[in-house]
Amino acid sequence: MTRSQLFEQITRKNSYLCIGLDTDIQKIPTHLLAYADPVFEFNRRIIDATHKYCIAYKPNLAFYEALGPQGWESLQKTVEYIPKEIFTIADAKRGDIGNTASLYAQAFFEKLKFDAITIAPYMGEDSVRPFLYKGKWAILLAHTSNPGSADFQLLESVVTGRKLYEEVIIRSQQWASADELMYVVGATQVEKIQSIRVLAPDHFFLVPGVGAQGGDLELVSTAGMNKQCGLIVNSSRAIIYASKEKDFAKRAGEEALAVRDQMKSLLVKNL
Amino acid sequence: MTRSQLFEQITRKNSYLCIGLDTDIQKIPTHLLAYADPVFEFNRRIIDATHKYCIAYKPNLAFYEALGPQGWESLQKTVEYIPKEIFTIADAKRGDIGNTASLYAQAFFEKLKFDAITIAPYMGEDSVRPFLYKGKWAILLAHTSNPGSADFQLLESVVTGRKLYEEVIIRSQQWASADELMYVVGATQVEKIQSIRVLAPDHFFLVPGVGAQGGDLELVSTAGMNKQCGLIVNSSRAIIYASKEKDFAKRAGEEALAVRDQMKSLLVKNL
Repeated sequence: MTRSQLFEQITRKNSYLCIGLDTDIQKIPTHLLAYADPVFEFNRRIIDATHKYCIAYKPNLAFYEALGPQGWESLQKTVEYIPKEIFTIADAKRGDIGNTASLYAQAFFEKLKFDAITIAPYMGEDSVRPFLYKGKWAILLAHTSNPGSADFQLLESVVTGRKLYEEVIIRSQQWASADELMYVVGATQVEKIQSIRVLAPDHFFLVPGVGAQGGDLELVSTAGMNKQCGLIVNSSRAIIYASKEKDFAKRAGEEALAVRDQMKSLLVKNL
Repeated sequence: MTRSQLFEQITRKNSYLCIGLDTDIQKIPTHLLAYADPVFEFNRRIIDATHKYCIAYKPNLAFYEALGPQGWESLQKTVEYIPKEIFTIADAKRGDIGNTASLYAQAFFEKLKFDAITIAPYMGEDSVRPFLYKGKWAILLAHTSNPGSADFQLLESVVTGRKLYEEVIIRSQQWASADELMYVVGATQVEKIQSIRVLAPDHFFLVPGVGAQGGDLELVSTAGMNKQCGLIVNSSRAIIYASKEKDFAKRAGEEALAVRDQMKSLLVKNL
């Protein structure tokens, strides 16, 4: 999917919502456990109820890997089930080099047909390049929203005076354009989003941490939006676990619609 | 597996060799493709031929994930097949936080029963803690051997004067001891191994890059060994693809034995 196709979807749906499919077999409504593939059944109903209000889905790989081969099958069926115009992100945070990275790219882009994968930048350029694939996206961890993000991401270079996450954003732009690269920027650091927007005016940012992790959608959007929206804001638990009863899909749809409505007015205000 | 059990294995086998099971279905001898699970058949024969000469196996997750659910099954069967006294490392380079990291830990430590997993430190403390598991090991990327390692790992802090990889080694020792934490230290940076040994005198280092990636075993061992060996040196392709014919397992065994013999004399010299 190209950047303009993504923007076209955003304007058509009046939404830049990504729904995180962090599907935990311990947390899904118990009546689904009677099915052969409860994780897929949960995802299928969530997708049916929410796909009109979001522009991306982001399965978190850990939840599927924890289930072994069966989890991998649930993941595969889920990605196949997602409507083709919707952007799919493998939240895998892979970071490896050479033929290893190429195999991950092959697994996620070709085998599972994801549009994008999240990548950890610690190993540098040769851990990013194999994910630069025609029509696909590498989404680089830049400034994350967890407490531990301060441990290394804020380390300030004696040479450039820039922090590690700023170095990641600046150097990686020498490797790839805004048509193949996005950044993960945590929503709990609103003032950072603004300064990162200056460093990367055209790139899309994947913003987790709105919802269960406590970011504020209006602040994030005002700070981070560019002329082509430039934001994909993720919500996982607040939507998919809005209810743990039989009405879970209906409630997920209502939550997604409420976020979409807020995003609609923020798009009008900021675009 | 405890640190003393690992050291006991090293002294008993006179080896600190780890064999990387980077099993690529495109590269294994073609006669194995007739089996239902060619990847497992390859691994089984490699393990049979080499387990007396090595103290660890390290499957590289990318090679298995590239094959989908079938690859996950090959991986599971491989780990079950490895003799119980041998240390098993999931080379997964995961790096995520909170419940996501806990699920990865569960997948690799409980479901697949690996002894250790490689971890990327970019997200900081809360991406490492969930992998501190009784009797299990987190192996943190510190200084890797790829060209891109210079991009961010050498960034020097304006506050401490230390480089990023040094910060990773120093800070992480506040989170975990040498009984639960190891570091990945690339073999192409021999002078670095020596200085890292000063920063972490007791920790085991997992050293990739000897063999196909060009490190020198004697230099690495002299620079990095401590009183309990403290080194696990990995070789992948040079051993498992020593031959691509029907004699591949026999040739792998011969290569592993040759490395073991060199390690035996290096242990005598340096311990």
